[in-house]
Amino acid sequence: MSDRPFAQPDFEREARWGLPEVVLGIGKTAAQIAEIVGRLRDANSGPVLVTKTTQSAYDAVLAVAPEAEFFVDAKLIRLPRPPVVSAGTIGVLAAGTADLPVAEEAALTAEAAGASVERIYDVGVAGLHRLLDRMDRIRLCEALVVVAGMEGALPTVVGGLTGLPIVAVPTSVGYGTSLGGVAALLGMLNSCTPQVVAVNIDNGFGAGFFAALITRKLA
Amino acid sequence: MSDRPFAQPDFEREARWGLPEVVLGIGKTAAQIAEIVGRLRDANSGPVLVTKTTQSAYDAVLAVAPEAEFFVDAKLIRLPRPPVVSAGTIGVLAAGTADLPVAEEAALTAEAAGASVERIYDVGVAGLHRLLDRMDRIRLCEALVVVAGMEGALPTVVGGLTGLPIVAVPTSVGYGTSLGGVAALLGMLNSCTPQVVAVNIDNGFGAGFFAALITRKLA
Amino acid sequence: MSDRPFAQPDFEREARWGLPEVVLGIGKTAAQIAEIVGRLRDANSGPVLVTKTTQSAYDAVLAVAPEAEFFVDAKLIRLPRPPVVSAGTIGVLAAGTADLPVAEEAALTAEAAGASVERIYDVGVAGLHRLLDRMDRIRLCEALVVVAGMEGALPTVVGGLTGLPIVAVPTSVGYGTSLGGVAALLGMLNSCTPQVVAVNIDNGFGAGFFAALITRKLA
Amino acid sequence: MSDRPFAQPDFEREARWGLPEVVLGIGKTAAQIAEIVGRLRDANSGPVLVTKTTQSAYDAVLAVAPEAEFFVDAKLIRLPRPPVVSAGTIGVLAAGTADLPVAEEAALTAEAAGASVERIYDVGVAGLHRLLDRMDRIRLCEALVVVAGMEGALPTVVGGLTGLPIVAVPTSVGYGTSLGGVAALLGMLNSCTPQVVAVNIDNGFGAGFFAALITRKLA
Amino acid sequence: MSDRPFAQPDFEREARWGLPEVVLGIGKTAAQIAEIVGRLRDANSGPVLVTKTTQSAYDAVLAVAPEAEFFVDAKLIRLPRPPVVSAGTIGVLAAGTADLPVAEEAALTAEAAGASVERIYDVGVAGLHRLLDRMDRIRLCEALVVVAGMEGALPTVVGGLTGLPIVAVPTSVGYGTSLGGVAALLGMLNSCTPQVVAVNIDNGFGAGFFAALITRKLA
Amino acid sequence: MSDRPFAQPDFEREARWGLPEVVLGIGKTAAQIAEIVGRLRDANSGPVLVTKTTQSAYDAVLAVAPEAEFFVDAKLIRLPRPPVVSAGTIGVLAAGTADLPVAEEAALTAEAAGASVERIYDVGVAGLHRLLDRMDRIRLCEALVVVAGMEGALPTVVGGLTGLPIVAVPTSVGYGTSLGGVAALLGMLNSCTPQVVAVNIDNGFGAGFFAALITRKLA
Amino acid sequence: MSDRPFAQPDFEREARWGLPEVVLGIGKTAAQIAEIVGRLRDANSGPVLVTKTTQSAYDAVLAVAPEAEFFVDAKLIRLPRPPVVSAGTIGVLAAGTADLPVAEEAALTAEAAGASVERIYDVGVAGLHRLLDRMDRIRLCEALVVVAGMEGALPTVVGGLTGLPIVAVPTSVGYGTSLGGVAALLGMLNSCTPQVVAVNIDNGFGAGFFAALITRKLA
Amino acid sequence: MSDRPFAQPDFEREARWGLPEVVLGIGKTAAQIAEIVGRLRDANSGPVLVTKTTQSAYDAVLAVAPEAEFFVDAKLIRLPRPPVVSAGTIGVLAAGTADLPVAEEAALTAEAAGASVERIYDVGVAGLHRLLDRMDRIRLCEALVVVAGMEGALPTVVGGLTGLPIVAVPTSVGYGTSLGGVAALLGMLNSCTPQVVAVNIDNGFGAGFFAALITRKLA
Repeated sequence: MSDRPFAQPDFEREARWGLPEVVLGIGKTAAQIAEIVGRLRDANSGPVLVTKTTQSAYDAVLAVAPEAEFFVDAKLIRLPRPPVVSAGTIGVLAAGTADLPVAEEAALTAEAAGASVERIYDVGVAGLHRLLDRMDRIRLCEALVVVAGMEGALPTVVGGLTGLPIVAVPTSVGYGTSLGGVAALLGMLNSCTPQVVAVNIDNGFGAGFFAALITRKLA
Repeated sequence: MSDRPFAQPDFEREARWGLPEVVLGIGKTAAQIAEIVGRLRDANSGPVLVTKTTQSAYDAVLAVAPEAEFFVDAKLIRLPRPPVVSAGTIGVLAAGTADLPVAEEAALTAEAAGASVERIYDVGVAGLHRLLDRMDRIRLCEALVVVAGMEGALPTVVGGLTGLPIVAVPTSVGYGTSLGGVAALLGMLNSCTPQVVAVNIDNGFGAGFFAALITRKLA
Repeated sequence: MSDRPFAQPDFEREARWGLPEVVLGIGKTAAQIAEIVGRLRDANSGPVLVTKTTQSAYDAVLAVAPEAEFFVDAKLIRLPRPPVVSAGTIGVLAAGTADLPVAEEAALTAEAAGASVERIYDVGVAGLHRLLDRMDRIRLCEALVVVAGMEGALPTVVGGLTGLPIVAVPTSVGYGTSLGGVAALLGMLNSCTPQVVAVNIDNGFGAGFFAALITRKLA
Repeated sequence: MSDRPFAQPDFEREARWGLPEVVLGIGKTAAQIAEIVGRLRDANSGPVLVTKTTQSAYDAVLAVAPEAEFFVDAKLIRLPRPPVVSAGTIGVLAAGTADLPVAEEAALTAEAAGASVERIYDVGVAGLHRLLDRMDRIRLCEALVVVAGMEGALPTVVGGLTGLPIVAVPTSVGYGTSLGGVAALLGMLNSCTPQVVAVNIDNGFGAGFFAALITRKLA
Repeated sequence: MSDRPFAQPDFEREARWGLPEVVLGIGKTAAQIAEIVGRLRDANSGPVLVTKTTQSAYDAVLAVAPEAEFFVDAKLIRLPRPPVVSAGTIGVLAAGTADLPVAEEAALTAEAAGASVERIYDVGVAGLHRLLDRMDRIRLCEALVVVAGMEGALPTVVGGLTGLPIVAVPTSVGYGTSLGGVAALLGMLNSCTPQVVAVNIDNGFGAGFFAALITRKLA
Repeated sequence: MSDRPFAQPDFEREARWGLPEVVLGIGKTAAQIAEIVGRLRDANSGPVLVTKTTQSAYDAVLAVAPEAEFFVDAKLIRLPRPPVVSAGTIGVLAAGTADLPVAEEAALTAEAAGASVERIYDVGVAGLHRLLDRMDRIRLCEALVVVAGMEGALPTVVGGLTGLPIVAVPTSVGYGTSLGGVAALLGMLNSCTPQVVAVNIDNGFGAGFFAALITRKLA
Repeated sequence: MSDRPFAQPDFEREARWGLPEVVLGIGKTAAQIAEIVGRLRDANSGPVLVTKTTQSAYDAVLAVAPEAEFFVDAKLIRLPRPPVVSAGTIGVLAAGTADLPVAEEAALTAEAAGASVERIYDVGVAGLHRLLDRMDRIRLCEALVVVAGMEGALPTVVGGLTGLPIVAVPTSVGYGTSLGGVAALLGMLNSCTPQVVAVNIDNGFGAGFFAALITRKLA
Repeated sequence: MSDRPFAQPDFEREARWGLPEVVLGIGKTAAQIAEIVGRLRDANSGPVLVTKTTQSAYDAVLAVAPEAEFFVDAKLIRLPRPPVVSAGTIGVLAAGTADLPVAEEAALTAEAAGASVERIYDVGVAGLHRLLDRMDRIRLCEALVVVAGMEGALPTVVGGLTGLPIVAVPTSVGYGTSLGGVAALLGMLNSCTPQVVAVNIDNGFGAGFFAALITRKLA
């Protein structure tokens, strides 16, 4: 290992998680990402994902994994392989158009972790009827990922309308006192309904993974 | 004035505001409060209010103004005199039981400033049907004061159901990351609906006054 | 809706607000903005606005709405159509030259919501006589939007000189401990005069809309 | 309802949550708590809980519900009635002795929501062998609640040793830059393992409820 | 020195500052304060001051310095001796009644440092005429200390009306987003007029000393 | 004024301050800056300054004021005209090389306000002997401006070595927990020596002006 | 262990650290502290310490360990037993009288961990000569613990005068913007000299332990 | 010195530190850096380092010191000369690939200060076995530098497995609530193990220097 000490991917994660180690693109060079992807591909059988990444990293990944796909909006690279576990149906809700990149990161991760995903977008509470009109589809899910920026009220409102577990994802969408997503996060952590748990700002990956995990089906 | 330099009450406010200067109890001694109340009573004709005050201040006020009332929950002293202006109907909504002191401060202030007040309490969004059941009464108001702690989502949700102007009051109710009301305030400032403006945490007085002001009727 | 799931504009807002849904440009692609504008134009009759947007979004909007105007300073796109409601006269005050983009966002929004706007700019309190010289024009308004960065003292000072309702807008103008507008916001929330309510930093849209709303005239 | 407007308990929650509405003791008087408990007892069949409460509230509750129990350490009142739903086995881990009140709040809530609870206390990472020695018991659980103050590293470390879903609860234990639990919360939100979701500081109730919810068994 | 290692008062300060070392009462026991006062009295000739102190410290000081005076409102103990230097006339302005303790700390310190003090209290900007009526007295001063809590606008407004140097003192008066005086401090640091410098929250001592220092007269 | 409402420069400031209004470059376009400079030049006789500005603003200013100078390091434009008042000798100290732009802004402002300036640079406390070697020059000044980033200890140390009034300027130099200068500012506000007052982060202009003001000589 | 699950003291620490596990008094009951002390006494041979504790905990400890000492100022209980390792000479410096409790916590811990301690107190930088007079004693140490509140400049200044490793301890001494010690901590983290590392606010224990550790002598 | 007043390098540091003054690249121009490097090279005999620097600064340095090396990942320029002191073996651990630049800054600094460095990278706690596998190499070191972003748990975990002194370096790696490294820093300051001290975010230089200093060997 001494000749490339910068990374020792954790090949045991696929066994522990039902998903290979996922590469966070932030702070890594394109070359580093490509090398890690190549090694993860060889050591695992499930879909390999890179999150919060760029076109130039994708170009480097293509050189070692020509089958790689790039989801521009979600800023996510995927090596399309079948999930190694099976999970339930996850509803991924997004409050506004600007929340879509994070929502897609969650949805694609949940699919890679074996879930079926129902996408329910642009249901912010400023027009509450849009959400109420979708409650039938929402109630068919086993768990929800709810993505919202600004005041982050959507998970709380959804929690007032259903009993499902909700993984809330604050986004950095907004300006001024949105404080890069902190306002939305605080709204979610202080939610007056206990079905709501939170992940880090913009962490669609974590939310999608967790939602799949809690609906995982035994083989 | 040199013998009591600590306060020169602003007797012009009744003319400018339609309400005598209101005394903030914080940081003043009982004796100071009593003296200021006495002087405001003499110089004005409308109801005199002391906010965020205590039983001991009330005792001191009684010595100079035996007609004074004390609203324990609202921590508010009132000299009961008829308002000098007339305003519209204000709905005061509170999310939870713990928000009542601030809601009552708002309601009593709005009444002193000439408004009629409709109290609509315990309509937090964790049980959304409670709010939906009250929408008929809410829609009859001309302006709303919406009081909420924790995640502060109630003003946003109300704004998704009606077109009325909403003065949102964050409360310091909560714990942990409620940060003494900052979480609720941020939720209100980042509300995705533009009918919502905010006042300081626990500032029921300001919200009640402002709501009365924007519905003031010409004589 | 499944073929373009990213946005479901809220066509009921024009009825509820007297103004079609306003598009926040932040976090949306030019193509997304253009499509939403097109759909809002078809479903509403009032002026359609895009705030905090860019030249490239304007170029995309022009393709679907050739009549669109772009106000560069205000970073605002407008489809020029008559307001569907009528409101009163709003004074829009700005403390300094650097506050003008936000002040113009407020003024243009208030006009789109049916108000007449009196623009009163560069009246910061460092030269108090400039403000005092304008008080006659200010007192003719029915409500005020007061825009200020740095220490945000202007709304408080104006509140000491008039009894009008004031919607204060902190701007992100300043440096160092202005903290991107947080200093000005705190100044406004802690104003010692209760005529002052606040909106989010740089939220000229919200302030202009709210000021128009509280002066709306019945048909 | 007009004669006691301060609270309208949400009786639908038992159906939606599998647990009656839980009363947060903060900000409510003893008399208010006792009245709400009485009404919840009549309208529901499951265990009624009051969290973050005091001896004086317990005294008041005893007058209306003599069967009530008070868990002093957990600051929790319980009306001992069988759960109305059935859930799986939850491991509740606590890093240090000072974290026990919150851990017990989580454990008692999970039990009220139908779960079996495995208590695994004083396994902070400063003596890692204490945790490693307990991993066998931990791996038998279906979900974990991990309670920690100070640096909040325990959920991350547990996540490096097992694939179970982890609901992390930061506590306000610590001093100085623990910032009342914010340091631990940030540690959990930034956890490098995606099995970890977080709830508000000291929110044992939310964590215990959520863990039970995701392991709920169909009747 | 080894028998009382806890303090080695700095006897050179009287020569450097024109005022003996001033004892900050916070964090010291009554016995420690009394001993330090006694040693400062012996080693210096000017007035000895203890700030932010208590009745019990005063009792202890009386035992070693029977001539000591206690200013209850200002929380300040003084050994009344003539100043060793001579300074100019300082105006000390306070916005509200609750700001008086800090204003008095500033005034008493400035007097001990040789200045004459003009006290101008309760001139908050919510009633601007009160300030305008006092401008003649203010303009006769050589430097100003301006004390204000809440939004902290007073120094900026005064700076718009005069060219004098202003030492602004934020106070911890207020609630909610006053953040214990941080809002007022930020308002002062971001003042749009450059005559304003700031000291720490509630630091009347520092402001009074500095104002005297910059008006010091040569013997 | 209606044809160019964006700015109404305050021509009275030269009389009040002894310096024409100084233009803050941030948030203004080059064209706006040039126009304001032109108008200030016509209405005042002293040096006109633009701070925190750019080469492109300088280019625009040159078109209306060919005599304008640009100090690249200080980011300051100056119209070189003799000061209209006379002030004393100011020492401007800077802790490190990276603090020089702010120090130069202070020095050039003080000179424009009539002061003589002694520049004493690179005397950070990590090598205390460098400062001690300069104390003779420092003690000849009447007031000091002390500029420092990082931990901001220099003003406190200088205050331990001399009795001069010190205007401390925190700079945004540093990284990580320097928090853009907040660490240095807090260090200065909490200085254990009362000769130190503070201005906003990077506000060399304010510090230089204030130091000149307090040493102003009567004509 | 199941009969007292609240604590499982880490008896391996004495071997790993050269000091038994130290009990943090915060958040533990007197009974819990006494029990833990008793068990640590039995399982270890070195001095047992309880930090940040109270008289009532001491009373409880005396019942199980009559030899226990209580250092009131340091809020520290000690079972006086000889250290099991030997370390070098540590200088413990404190800036002011109010910093002594934390300094004593550091000194007593270092002694328990085998070090000799030189106490050098009240050497704050406001009177720099007091520090310079002690430099000879300071230079004889092998490592320093430097304790300071307020602006926290002392470690930086000491680092400018010696090449010794410095463990800086911010204290919560101060008021206003000292922010409970955060100002001092930031000053230490941003120190311009690299000999300085920091521990948590008021963490005398950690600093004393670390200083002893880095000077430990081989047997 | 008057002809180049911007910098007076501290040539005494090599004697005091065993390392010449190290140049922080931030906030200095390439020309300034080159000049300072040239002067340091002439006045010292040990390795000269520039940290947090750029290619353009390196180009300028090459003109005066052609032997200079540039470590792109570490953003560090080095004049390769033998250390003037000798130190022990330092283990530099990094949690993830993105932490490598800071880890390399620490390693190169420690080497310049005379230490031998053992690099142990990519041992984040999400895959704990990777760390456990390396403990044998870690235990051979005399002191550790542990570099981690995100939740910053690695130093605490390492401290639970060894008794070595640990200098923890938080990195700005992460997103959302990592807050630019503040989350990791807080995790380290609140570490439940007392072997851990912290330096500023991304301050690899300080950590590497300090670790070398505490293992320095006498000649």
